[in-house]
Amino acid sequence: MEKYTHKPDLVISGGTLLTMVDGAAPIEDATIRIHSGRIIGIETAPAGFTAAQGALDRIDAKGCIVMPGLVNAHTHAAMTLFRGYADDLPLHQWLFDRIFPAEAAFLSDDTVYWGALLGCLEMIASGTTCFADGYFFQDATARAVQEAGLRAVVAQGVIDFPAPGVPDPADNIREACAFMERWQGVSDRITAGLFCHSPVTCSAATLKAGAAASERFGAPFQIHLSETLGEVDQILRQTGRRPASYLDQLGILDGRMTAAHAVHLDPDEMRLLKERSVRLVNVPESNMKLASGVAPVTSLMRLGIPMGLGTDGCCSNNNLDMFQEMDTAAKLSKVFSADPIALTARDALRMATSLGAEVLGLDSRIGTIEIGKAADLIVIDLQKPHLHPVYDPYSALVYAASGGDVRDTIVEGRILMRNRSFLTLDAAEIMRKVSAVAQRITTATAGLNQTSVAPASNQGA
Amino acid sequence: MEKYTHKPDLVISGGTLLTMVDGAAPIEDATIRIHSGRIIGIETAPAGFTAAQGALDRIDAKGCIVMPGLVNAHTHAAMTLFRGYADDLPLHQWLFDRIFPAEAAFLSDDTVYWGALLGCLEMIASGTTCFADGYFFQDATARAVQEAGLRAVVAQGVIDFPAPGVPDPADNIREACAFMERWQGVSDRITAGLFCHSPVTCSAATLKAGAAASERFGAPFQIHLSETLGEVDQILRQTGRRPASYLDQLGILDGRMTAAHAVHLDPDEMRLLKERSVRLVNVPESNMKLASGVAPVTSLMRLGIPMGLGTDGCCSNNNLDMFQEMDTAAKLSKVFSADPIALTARDALRMATSLGAEVLGLDSRIGTIEIGKAADLIVIDLQKPHLHPVYDPYSALVYAASGGDVRDTIVEGRILMRNRSFLTLDAAEIMRKVSAVAQRITTATAGLNQTSVAPASNQGA
Repeated sequence: MEKYTHKPDLVISGGTLLTMVDGAAPIEDATIRIHSGRIIGIETAPAGFTAAQGALDRIDAKGCIVMPGLVNAHTHAAMTLFRGYADDLPLHQWLFDRIFPAEAAFLSDDTVYWGALLGCLEMIASGTTCFADGYFFQDATARAVQEAGLRAVVAQGVIDFPAPGVPDPADNIREACAFMERWQGVSDRITAGLFCHSPVTCSAATLKAGAAASERFGAPFQIHLSETLGEVDQILRQTGRRPASYLDQLGILDGRMTAAHAVHLDPDEMRLLKERSVRLVNVPESNMKLASGVAPVTSLMRLGIPMGLGTDGCCSNNNLDMFQEMDTAAKLSKVFSADPIALTARDALRMATSLGAEVLGLDSRIGTIEIGKAADLIVIDLQKPHLHPVYDPYSALVYAASGGDVRDTIVEGRILMRNRSFLTLDAAEIMRKVSAVAQRITTATAGLNQTSVAPASNQGA
Repeated sequence: MEKYTHKPDLVISGGTLLTMVDGAAPIEDATIRIHSGRIIGIETAPAGFTAAQGALDRIDAKGCIVMPGLVNAHTHAAMTLFRGYADDLPLHQWLFDRIFPAEAAFLSDDTVYWGALLGCLEMIASGTTCFADGYFFQDATARAVQEAGLRAVVAQGVIDFPAPGVPDPADNIREACAFMERWQGVSDRITAGLFCHSPVTCSAATLKAGAAASERFGAPFQIHLSETLGEVDQILRQTGRRPASYLDQLGILDGRMTAAHAVHLDPDEMRLLKERSVRLVNVPESNMKLASGVAPVTSLMRLGIPMGLGTDGCCSNNNLDMFQEMDTAAKLSKVFSADPIALTARDALRMATSLGAEVLGLDSRIGTIEIGKAADLIVIDLQKPHLHPVYDPYSALVYAASGGDVRDTIVEGRILMRNRSFLTLDAAEIMRKVSAVAQRITTATAGLNQTSVAPASNQGA
């Protein structure tokens, strides 16, 4: 009888509830009761009305959809610092001539902190309650997550170049372990992990050491896998194997791995990923913007490989809006597979909720609305012209809504945004701080931009 | 000295101005003076401050971008009535089993009026100030445009089936002519035209009669061209020619034609379209959602064919947000052509402004911000987390913004939306009316939905 023993801290009532439990129908006029950060009751009116008596706080969700908060399964939050800094460029030039040098020059504990806070602010504003982040200076990102009140897998970057905060690559695994040591168990909302950048930028020894560290800490192991054809070719030349097969040969392809992009896979690799229980993240907008390719999402889902959805960082998207990402994911899979039934609205929503939670190993706690799960919820206001009429709430969310339609964002029962006002973060201060960093970057790289952009334009002509 | 002879009716000052004149740089702290619906002055502070004295009304655009209102060059506004009514279905089944029957049963002068008003409301809310509309009961759409205060090319549908409002196809051209007769010269903001649905759904005789009527009235001629492979195959089988070549053989391929979709074109057809001065509209999200294919946009633009951007109707998108459409257009062209430099942010913005105006034959009046042009303007509020920082305003608008970031919408100097409040339309009443129509459709088609959706799922499995 647990569900009747507590007066709720918070009650959300009157909305259309999408629990995102497989096969469950929408629940009209639903009441959700929350106590100590968990969901303790789900009723429909009038039972809900009775059960909700005595709540400390209430959210009226009449005319709204209530659903699990979205899970952004692959991003680099602090890259908000570089949003719009390098667009319409080839990936190699984008990464090596613009992003890596800018990161080397301008990333610090301080700038990553403010950049990550801006990312958190944007995610709260667009209905993301949990994200997987791989970057450098990740103590700063973890602090930002704590202050924002969000949930995240925060993974320290490992790369075999001098990296921001890790000038000597020989220290990269040690730094990642020290990070996991510092953050394991600090907060229910933060899972510390390790992010080996890619099979191209990490040596076999580094990849093996990273996987071993991840196993030792029982921590997630993130990686970029087969994002571009060039990367696949390079691994093929160097090892005689395609990337997934190469990682398997190293003995590190397993259920601890979350691999983002997964664009260029042959059928053998897909079967291998399935056999080894690897979890994947689809990152469609970034793959489109950098012209990397289109992931074979429907084939991978047909094999039963769990696949989440991610925005990637703000340099290659350029926002963290998971509603727009769902829309693009569904539409891109349809046109790419010449099948308008491929990746339905409900499939896209599953990728952004329950499957995303599974991919991050958090599905026992989040991803659906069920009694006992954490109260990570969002309320979407349908009283907008572009959200009328509603024949099907799943369709409205995926094909018509965008992040700005989220009215309230709640994590572990705590309201982070209410009626679009931020309750945990000072939005004006964060935007001011990040704009000041951007101003410094603009001033310092004014010459670089000129020389760097010109060849790209010539190449395009 | 015209620009100093009038006190302005409206002044917009303090923003970053993107005139969308080719090659022009952004103007910081710009003042735009408007009199009698036209732009009479563009200055920067402090000259702007002096010139703006005595204005009747002022908009403070500090921290905002000011730019030409967006041109949605292909839509069917009243199809908001069916937003989300038929998703994740094959095009033929979508059109013939769901959309056409629903249109036949539920379209009337009254429902098209309310549906078009909802479309207008959504466009005002997302920064579209001009659109090209092809549908039935177009008197109702034209009335909605008048009341909304928007600008539009409103074209009466012509199809060789019994159509909504035109039960006998023998009347289709006559009805379209009567429509053009009624609406020509009624308003500066409304251009009456004719919309032959497609070469597949209109006979050769109908297409020729349509083109002749369009010539007689000096009116635009809209058509869907080569949207699907099936359609191309059908024309090939029936005529021995591909669609563009077939239309040319009929003698109707000329500068009066605006052809939407243009997905499946061979190189000869592209050259033919260029030679005949046909204007095209790229409709990427609809083509993705219905898995129709990807238009060869960069090839067409390289040939110098003017190409606008359109959302299509709300059944195949499912919104009218041109900001999201620009983002998708740019990203889809990049991944489709494996070239991250293809269709830059600025290209996408040109398609949605100056090129869109050219495609609709309205470029002498709208599409850029220049003295003497109509004051069709939008103000985008950058004080949002996802729009910080701004290294490049074009990038911010295309890759990060969405329609909900538009703060003010102005057509011919009249403010239609101010601080996101609608000044010409009653949003609550329009949403209520359309939801009531949707409720009737849902009730009446409850059985149809069941039988119609099931085979699609089977087909997908």
